[in-house]
Amino acid sequence: MISTRDKLIHTTAALIRRKGYFGTGISEVLAEVGVPKGSLYHHFPDGKDELIKAAIQYGGENQMMRYGVALKGKPAIEGLNAMVDVMIDDLLSSDFKDACPITAVAAVASSMDETIRVACEQIFKGWQDDLSGYLLRRGVTNAHQKAQQLYTMFEGAFVLSQAHKDVKFLAIQKTYIPIILKS
Amino acid sequence: MISTRDKLIHTTAALIRRKGYFGTGISEVLAEVGVPKGSLYHHFPDGKDELIKAAIQYGGENQMMRYGVALKGKPAIEGLNAMVDVMIDDLLSSDFKDACPITAVAAVASSMDETIRVACEQIFKGWQDDLSGYLLRRGVTNAHQKAQQLYTMFEGAFVLSQAHKDVKFLAIQKTYIPIILKS
Repeated sequence: MISTRDKLIHTTAALIRRKGYFGTGISEVLAEVGVPKGSLYHHFPDGKDELIKAAIQYGGENQMMRYGVALKGKPAIEGLNAMVDVMIDDLLSSDFKDACPITAVAAVASSMDETIRVACEQIFKGWQDDLSGYLLRRGVTNAHQKAQQLYTMFEGAFVLSQAHKDVKFLAIQKTYIPIILKS
Repeated sequence: MISTRDKLIHTTAALIRRKGYFGTGISEVLAEVGVPKGSLYHHFPDGKDELIKAAIQYGGENQMMRYGVALKGKPAIEGLNAMVDVMIDDLLSSDFKDACPITAVAAVASSMDETIRVACEQIFKGWQDDLSGYLLRRGVTNAHQKAQQLYTMFEGAFVLSQAHKDVKFLAIQKTYIPIILKS
């Protein structure tokens, strides 16, 4: 059975993905989970920021796992295409509500406690490092820089595809993946 | 002399860039401009959303003009490098507080009135179209698609450089600009 603590984290992760830090109200989280106000401080003594950081980590690692499943056992181009398909599916299955799980928080992180930006940075870095290891194991030269560049392209395409309600920005990455790998 | 209406728009544009839609409070805007609450509805009868849309347009067109100045009269690679330098300067001169003027709103746009997402889309599209015309005038083949891809890379790099407090994600675009142009 899923614990109240985990329910709070999962609900917050879903809300910050759509509304960011400022749009996610603790009262909305508590109402959705169906627990009283005291629950927050019982599970997260430092309050909202501690819960948000746990949600960034949970949402980020969950997405990392989904990218990992997409990449697994495939040659580089095929695996990267499947990773792009995860992002396309996220947008299409949510009517363009769910893009990158942490962008909406990261984009306003300079206005809040520095530890929240650091939590976002660690997730972004984790995704890039996973991709770097994946490319290295497939004999790609300059794997770390290429992983960073591919991830930069995917991140931009995720933002633009959501804003335009059109997955074309993500789909076209499949044209540029081999160009970056060969470069 | 700058009008109260323009002051409200400029102040809101600066705030949404750092805090997004939900983090930008009307009371903060009014206090910063130094006008009473009635001022909002006097100048923006439809309230917060009308002001936010005016701020998206103002901030977006202001940034578009700065990119235009950077690109102007230069060969493609040199102009695009100068455009990247505008973004790097935005981050460095604001201690990483000012990234893309509209990303923080665009990332949460699915949680608010559709007209706000449309306002963001029009700005993103304007930047891409400007870049497309610029490349076309310099004889670049497949200019529209390349402009979209370059803009996607720059957008992702802006988000990641801010989140990492490190301009390396933007700086490395200068390595990939010729690769995309040649592709």
